[in-house]
Amino acid sequence: MAYDTVLYDVADRICTIALNRPEKLNAWTRQMHIDLKDAMHRAGADPEVRAIILTGAGRGFCAGADMGGLQAIGAGGGSADRSTKAAQALQGGSTLPEFKMSYSYFPAIPKFIIAAINGPAAGLGFVIPLYADLRFAGESAVFTTAFAQRGLIAEHGVSWLLPRLVGLPAAMDLLCSARKFRAPEALALGLVSRVIPDDKLMAETRAYATLLANTVSPRSVTVMKRQIWEAEFQTLAEATTQANHEMELSFQTADFKEGVAHFLEKRAARFTGQ
Amino acid sequence: MAYDTVLYDVADRICTIALNRPEKLNAWTRQMHIDLKDAMHRAGADPEVRAIILTGAGRGFCAGADMGGLQAIGAGGGSADRSTKAAQALQGGSTLPEFKMSYSYFPAIPKFIIAAINGPAAGLGFVIPLYADLRFAGESAVFTTAFAQRGLIAEHGVSWLLPRLVGLPAAMDLLCSARKFRAPEALALGLVSRVIPDDKLMAETRAYATLLANTVSPRSVTVMKRQIWEAEFQTLAEATTQANHEMELSFQTADFKEGVAHFLEKRAARFTGQ
Amino acid sequence: MAYDTVLYDVADRICTIALNRPEKLNAWTRQMHIDLKDAMHRAGADPEVRAIILTGAGRGFCAGADMGGLQAIGAGGGSADRSTKAAQALQGGSTLPEFKMSYSYFPAIPKFIIAAINGPAAGLGFVIPLYADLRFAGESAVFTTAFAQRGLIAEHGVSWLLPRLVGLPAAMDLLCSARKFRAPEALALGLVSRVIPDDKLMAETRAYATLLANTVSPRSVTVMKRQIWEAEFQTLAEATTQANHEMELSFQTADFKEGVAHFLEKRAARFTGQ
Repeated sequence: MAYDTVLYDVADRICTIALNRPEKLNAWTRQMHIDLKDAMHRAGADPEVRAIILTGAGRGFCAGADMGGLQAIGAGGGSADRSTKAAQALQGGSTLPEFKMSYSYFPAIPKFIIAAINGPAAGLGFVIPLYADLRFAGESAVFTTAFAQRGLIAEHGVSWLLPRLVGLPAAMDLLCSARKFRAPEALALGLVSRVIPDDKLMAETRAYATLLANTVSPRSVTVMKRQIWEAEFQTLAEATTQANHEMELSFQTADFKEGVAHFLEKRAARFTGQ
Repeated sequence: MAYDTVLYDVADRICTIALNRPEKLNAWTRQMHIDLKDAMHRAGADPEVRAIILTGAGRGFCAGADMGGLQAIGAGGGSADRSTKAAQALQGGSTLPEFKMSYSYFPAIPKFIIAAINGPAAGLGFVIPLYADLRFAGESAVFTTAFAQRGLIAEHGVSWLLPRLVGLPAAMDLLCSARKFRAPEALALGLVSRVIPDDKLMAETRAYATLLANTVSPRSVTVMKRQIWEAEFQTLAEATTQANHEMELSFQTADFKEGVAHFLEKRAARFTGQ
Repeated sequence: MAYDTVLYDVADRICTIALNRPEKLNAWTRQMHIDLKDAMHRAGADPEVRAIILTGAGRGFCAGADMGGLQAIGAGGGSADRSTKAAQALQGGSTLPEFKMSYSYFPAIPKFIIAAINGPAAGLGFVIPLYADLRFAGESAVFTTAFAQRGLIAEHGVSWLLPRLVGLPAAMDLLCSARKFRAPEALALGLVSRVIPDDKLMAETRAYATLLANTVSPRSVTVMKRQIWEAEFQTLAEATTQANHEMELSFQTADFKEGVAHFLEKRAARFTGQ
């Protein structure tokens, strides 16, 4: 199955999804929203996939909402993309209502998601990768929240999520000034975890995904991703009580037996996710 | 209208408020508290003002509570400044009870507030700028929480706010040790966002304020400031639901029309805040 | 009173507790859990102790759960350490339920706790020092969450606490990849506050503890430690209301009088904690 606006590829246990309107710097459309959500859920449900990479085709990551759409809204002739039904929770992923908003479903996908930001990321194209579990940037990535320059507001949860990634003052600065900034500043702010030369971005991102795919228990990753995102809405007591329950469950798994065995036998792990 | 203990100036859409007891390193008094609160609300309500700079006159920012007052409290002859009435919420600013405590009203002011910390900031003089939206420091700024050296405690919400700005361990360190530290460490900890040579502090701070005043929608800034502060007390679902409502409202504004128009026409924006 | 698995020493108002199974890199056992909890509560209750240092004997800090124990669980012949009774709250420390889970009692100890991480810290040995108030690392410290390589999950509250120390993306990375990392990266991530040459680790940690022991009010430290940890579960309004109450109480103490007096008399403080 192919998509109109995203590319979908699975190889070596890694699913790569690329936004694919390169002639428009992958500007966001309603169709892209539908395609990406379907692709993410497909990768989430595929037992062959252990990690997901999200990137952009061509020289951009995502330039934000397509200006044609915005213009139409301003002229009263369009409609914002706000009617999307909540994503259905998948086995293993969080079922919190938090992760059923239009653009907040990445945390409910039960696989680790890495955004490889290869170029301009603006507006909605700035917000979407914030919901990934980790972000790497190519050296030519450039960022702007953009909203304040459009007369808009902090959309789709970014007022909640951005301060938790870069701190309250940097979120104030980036959202209210809408200034452009580049990959090294994104790294210093904690918005991305690595800056990588453009021509090595995909190879280094795949190397990290391979680590997740081959050396750790996929069951552990799915449970821990859920634990970490849900902990944002829990007290320490609630998180610990949940962890104690999950620990009991994990003791009964094949992956736990393999986890102890490969260590004692000093060999590479062969986790099955069971 | 002039104040006894603060200077008030508006120029080029920027309001500059300076604590003004320079012979005492701007040590805090009850009158200064009253004057600053009035000045902040005045700037908040003035449609000509698009950004506010808070600084100190002379070589200090604020040395903390005036020692005369503290001595009087110790001798049983004084009273702590705790009877201030809650600030009245202004149009556009948050009306959360959080921002109606004695010293927590900055987030309820519907303009972006930048603290330009030009010298010593101690005790209450350390706490007050934490409620600003952004902090720049001059190279000669020096900081101390001071409370633990006075036998006091983490006053006026600093136990809540400081960990959210610099992290839990740094907050523990700075509050419990009460050690002095300088601008470069404040930058490394994330307490301030820039360190600037003393003689350029005001010019660079004004340059940033000018960016806010002239290139982005003042309506966007007011709404986003409120969104970001309130998100500290919201779940992601609540923040997103609020954002979806604010997005609808913004689509109907002149600033949104102008935000699209100036982009398509490749010209400077002329936002009115409407 | 001596312990089987920890060393306990008090000198110059500083209590040093060392995990002491050096031939096993201080791998965690049920007895060590019981001994450490008793030692921490003893130091918390001793009026001579003003700060606590937690470290490891020999060349390791703590290699995590003893593999013998884990193997027994995998074989169905053991039992996880989950029956420990909640620590009893001490005078001055927080009594929140959060700090009564098996491994979360450090915040309820009414003295400042510094972890001096002198070598490998893995699994449970990675989690335990996160509950200290501050962490210094020796240059040869090496860290791994380990759980995902064992088929386990984010245990004992680490899914809640780690993101609050290093941010959401770094917590995702460290927990899901289980990769090893060294002291300089731990510093860059904010996991530890200082990296110190191995042969100076204890001396520099003691120098910091001495600052707490001799220059600030022990009453202030106890109250502020409680305020800061509890603020993680409070709104700003709640934290400020609590602070206003604590401020009133502190005005009536001998430590407050001494705090003003030593400042005005320009002499070293002589706090009693009263």
